[in-house]
Amino acid sequence: METSASRLRIVLVGTQHPGNIGSSARALKTMGLSRLALVAPERFPHADADAMAAGAGDVLASAERHATLAEAVADCRLVLGCTARDRRVALEPLAPREAAARAVEAAGSGAAVAIVFGPERTGLSNEDLHLCHAAVHIPADPAYSSLNLAAAVQVLTYELRLASLAAESAGDGAELGRSLASHAELEGFFGQLAQTLDEIDFHKGRAPDSAMRKLRRLYLRAGLDAKEVRLLRGILADAQRMASLGRSGSR
Amino acid sequence: METSASRLRIVLVGTQHPGNIGSSARALKTMGLSRLALVAPERFPHADADAMAAGAGDVLASAERHATLAEAVADCRLVLGCTARDRRVALEPLAPREAAARAVEAAGSGAAVAIVFGPERTGLSNEDLHLCHAAVHIPADPAYSSLNLAAAVQVLTYELRLASLAAESAGDGAELGRSLASHAELEGFFGQLAQTLDEIDFHKGRAPDSAMRKLRRLYLRAGLDAKEVRLLRGILADAQRMASLGRSGSR
Repeated sequence: METSASRLRIVLVGTQHPGNIGSSARALKTMGLSRLALVAPERFPHADADAMAAGAGDVLASAERHATLAEAVADCRLVLGCTARDRRVALEPLAPREAAARAVEAAGSGAAVAIVFGPERTGLSNEDLHLCHAAVHIPADPAYSSLNLAAAVQVLTYELRLASLAAESAGDGAELGRSLASHAELEGFFGQLAQTLDEIDFHKGRAPDSAMRKLRRLYLRAGLDAKEVRLLRGILADAQRMASLGRSGSR
Repeated sequence: METSASRLRIVLVGTQHPGNIGSSARALKTMGLSRLALVAPERFPHADADAMAAGAGDVLASAERHATLAEAVADCRLVLGCTARDRRVALEPLAPREAAARAVEAAGSGAAVAIVFGPERTGLSNEDLHLCHAAVHIPADPAYSSLNLAAAVQVLTYELRLASLAAESAGDGAELGRSLASHAELEGFFGQLAQTLDEIDFHKGRAPDSAMRKLRRLYLRAGLDAKEVRLLRGILADAQRMASLGRSGSR
C-alpha cells in the first residue's frame, strides 16, 4: 500500500563506506521510513553494511539501485539535497526542520519526495545539486561541520518523523496526557496548605504571606494534575492529624 | 573559560563498542560541544574509537573517565537520562526538544548539566535512572525503536545545538534567573520527605515506593531552586517536630 512514508525516500549518492549504508538503513527504520535508494555505491552489498544495519536488514535488502541520481529521482516532485553551507550552486537554503515540514506536506498530498546525500568525502557534485529543488543545511558548528554521513541521515530522518507525527496529531487532535488540576482543586490545596502551616507552627510569628506566595509559585510551576493534588492533600491531612495530637500532647 | 557549552556534558555509561565512543565524540564536536564523560567503557582507548572520531580526536583525548555514573554527575544540577519508552522507573518523560531547551536554559544559568546514555544492549539500569531527574525519549517507530547509540547522541546534540542557537539569538538577554538546586540538595530533600511520611504515618501499611516516586516526579518537574528546597525542608522539619510531640502525646 502506498502511504505518506512510502513516498519519502532517502537517496545516497556514491557512498564510499558500506557501513554508512547500513547505518543509514537503521536510521530510516527507527524513524518509520523504509525506502532507501542507492546511486552507484562504491561497495555494496558488503558485510559492513549488513553489520551496521542491525535489525534493519529488510530496508537494506529492498534498497533500490540506480546508476545516476537523475534516474533515482525521476518520479519525484520534490528533491532536497543535503549539503554543507556556502555552495556555489544558488539553491534555496532550508534548515532540516523546514525541509522535513515541506517534504511531509508534499508526500501527504501524494507527491514522491527524495532527500539526497552525497559521497562522504566530497558531498553532492554541482551536477547533482542541479537536480535538487532546495538545499538542506544541518546547522553544524562552522569550526568543525563534518557530520558523518549516517549521522546526517539520522538528523534528517528524525526531523521527518517529527514532522510526520505532527501532521498525524494535527489530524486527530485530542491529546490524552495528564489532566491538569482545576482552579478549584488547586485553591482547595493551597487553603489546606496555609492551614497546615499554621497548625504545625511554621510561621513562628513571621508574616505568613511570603512563604505562601513562594509555595504557590512553586506548585503552580509544577503543573499539578488532579491525582497529585489528592496525594499532597493526603499528606497534609496526616500532618494536621499529627499536629492536633501534638498540641493535645504538649498541653 | 567556562561557557554555557562547557557546562553541558554527554555521559556514556558502560559503552560496549568503542566505535560508538568515537562517533559520539564526532557528533559532539560537529554540534559545538566538547565535554564527553565515559563511565566504565568496556574497551577504551581503542583504534575503532579513534577511527570513528575522525576530526574530533581532541574531544576523545580530553574525555573524562569515571567508575560510576554517580561520580560522573556529582556536580550536576540537571541530569537527563536517554531511555526507550515504557520503563518501570517513573521519570518525567521529555521529548529531545524539550530536554534540550531545559538543558540549555539550566547551563545558561550556571548549572552543570549531564545527558546520559546507557550501554548499547541494555540501556540505562534502573539504578542509574534513579540518578536522573527526567527521561528523554527519542520518538522512534515503536515497530523498531532501536537507534544506534551514536545516532541517539547525534539527535540529542543536534537538538542542544538548535536550543543553544535559539538562546543566543534570543539575545544575550542576561537572564539572572533562579539557580537550580543541586543534585545533593534535591536528594537531601527527598530523603527528609520520605522520613516525614513515615513519621506522620502517611503510608498506613501501603508500600511507600509508589507515593515517593510520584512525589519525586512532581518536584523534579517543578525545577526547584535552592531557596525553595530550604523552604520545603523547613516545613518538613516542623511537621516532624509535631509528629514527635504527637507520638509522645498519644502514648
